[in-house]
Amino acid sequence: MTKAPLRVALDQGTGDSGDPASSLTRLTERARTAASAGAHLLIGPEMSLTGYNIGDAVSRSAEPADGPLFEAVAGIAAATGVAIVYGFPERAGEHVYNTVQLVDGHGRSLARYRKTHLFEDLDRRVFTPGEKLVVQADLQGHRVGLLICYDVEFSEAVRAHALAGTELLVVPTALMEPDTRVATLLVPTRAMENQLHLAYVNRCDREGDLDYVGLSTLVAPDGTELLRAGAGEALLVGDTEPTVAHDFLERLSYLDDRRPELYGPLLK
Amino acid sequence: MTKAPLRVALDQGTGDSGDPASSLTRLTERARTAASAGAHLLIGPEMSLTGYNIGDAVSRSAEPADGPLFEAVAGIAAATGVAIVYGFPERAGEHVYNTVQLVDGHGRSLARYRKTHLFEDLDRRVFTPGEKLVVQADLQGHRVGLLICYDVEFSEAVRAHALAGTELLVVPTALMEPDTRVATLLVPTRAMENQLHLAYVNRCDREGDLDYVGLSTLVAPDGTELLRAGAGEALLVGDTEPTVAHDFLERLSYLDDRRPELYGPLLK
Repeated sequence: MTKAPLRVALDQGTGDSGDPASSLTRLTERARTAASAGAHLLIGPEMSLTGYNIGDAVSRSAEPADGPLFEAVAGIAAATGVAIVYGFPERAGEHVYNTVQLVDGHGRSLARYRKTHLFEDLDRRVFTPGEKLVVQADLQGHRVGLLICYDVEFSEAVRAHALAGTELLVVPTALMEPDTRVATLLVPTRAMENQLHLAYVNRCDREGDLDYVGLSTLVAPDGTELLRAGAGEALLVGDTEPTVAHDFLERLSYLDDRRPELYGPLLK
Repeated sequence: MTKAPLRVALDQGTGDSGDPASSLTRLTERARTAASAGAHLLIGPEMSLTGYNIGDAVSRSAEPADGPLFEAVAGIAAATGVAIVYGFPERAGEHVYNTVQLVDGHGRSLARYRKTHLFEDLDRRVFTPGEKLVVQADLQGHRVGLLICYDVEFSEAVRAHALAGTELLVVPTALMEPDTRVATLLVPTRAMENQLHLAYVNRCDREGDLDYVGLSTLVAPDGTELLRAGAGEALLVGDTEPTVAHDFLERLSYLDDRRPELYGPLLK
């Protein structure tokens, strides 16, 4: 348990909705700031580079995972040495996925996750659901996992990560009014009940008819909020491995105390 | 969704630890008060009639589910017309279980649940784990489920109840310092993520080396706290079916939006 902490930067906000060029310009600035703060990883919200609630423009801006958006982000990551998690609509054959990608500080893709739990028509009219629940990568000795927004509201998704050894779960999101309790109650619970770090990074702008609530947070494995944003644009930087969690982790293990032989009904 | 509400009374507190006679005297008073407040169901904490952190006295006070404690509670329920959930150490052959029993307002046993997730040595040195996760009964048209304390900290246990149709999950508990976040964060999340009512009823006395934290609560299916106790002894009365939950329940269904085909790892 005594590894060097990972310094994480939560980038609550995006560029102009529907304008990837402005989002990339902004991301460049944020990555430089994150680098100067010593951050290893910069995390943006769901669909951070293209906009989310922009109707058919989502499909039109979809591109392959190694397309121009990736090339631009890889360049920013390599120039600053900061790993980046960003969101974009991924085109793969006839399908469009709601995807996040983790690029390391050398500009290499480490992991790509396609949202498995689609949210209402906002997702379902555009996206194909992903079919792989647990996607992970090692970043400076930390096992990092990826989920997106609505995924985290399903206890099963986060539990699957914990069982697979995820230490820092990264969750880009687009949480809107009136669902603030997801950010304030459910997300800290997910970290605590699975005894992992969880970074939940939200949009904060108004976009179409949606008011995103901000409230991005980094939560420790005992439920302590290490970082918490307000409603507006913000860049928050903090470390993943605070001593506050150690007592809790040493005292009990939720994973060890499970009764999986009784959980059959969950697969129905 | 438009059925008559169930009026629930949360009985935060117990009689003298290790003295069932005092606990039964107290329960009689509480049941009368609950009846006069129009409550249908009175819920006490974990091991409400015997004490919990009392060493070997737990085993010595264990008795069959239809033993003298049941007879006494059945008499109180029948005399007041109030259904009662109480906790006791249940002897069955060579085994002792950490059990709660639901007795209806006529004094009949409707359901009995044996704790499946045992907590540290406090439970494990005394109790055999239960082998049935979902125990339910119908009470005035409401499907009531039973769990105990540490059980609720496992998302799988509450999910299994939701999938089985539990509408009001009753959780007698004995939550101690420093784990207040279980009461304040995790329990409201359990209600919200499963869209059911949850009654979490705690002890509040000091017992041996444990300081119980109180904070009993009745939570609506959207995470709203309908009742919330402080640290001290209290009787709280409220209804299960507030309009506050309806919008949330009609807008989305977590149960419908699950991806059970991806949840195989949870059984490992």
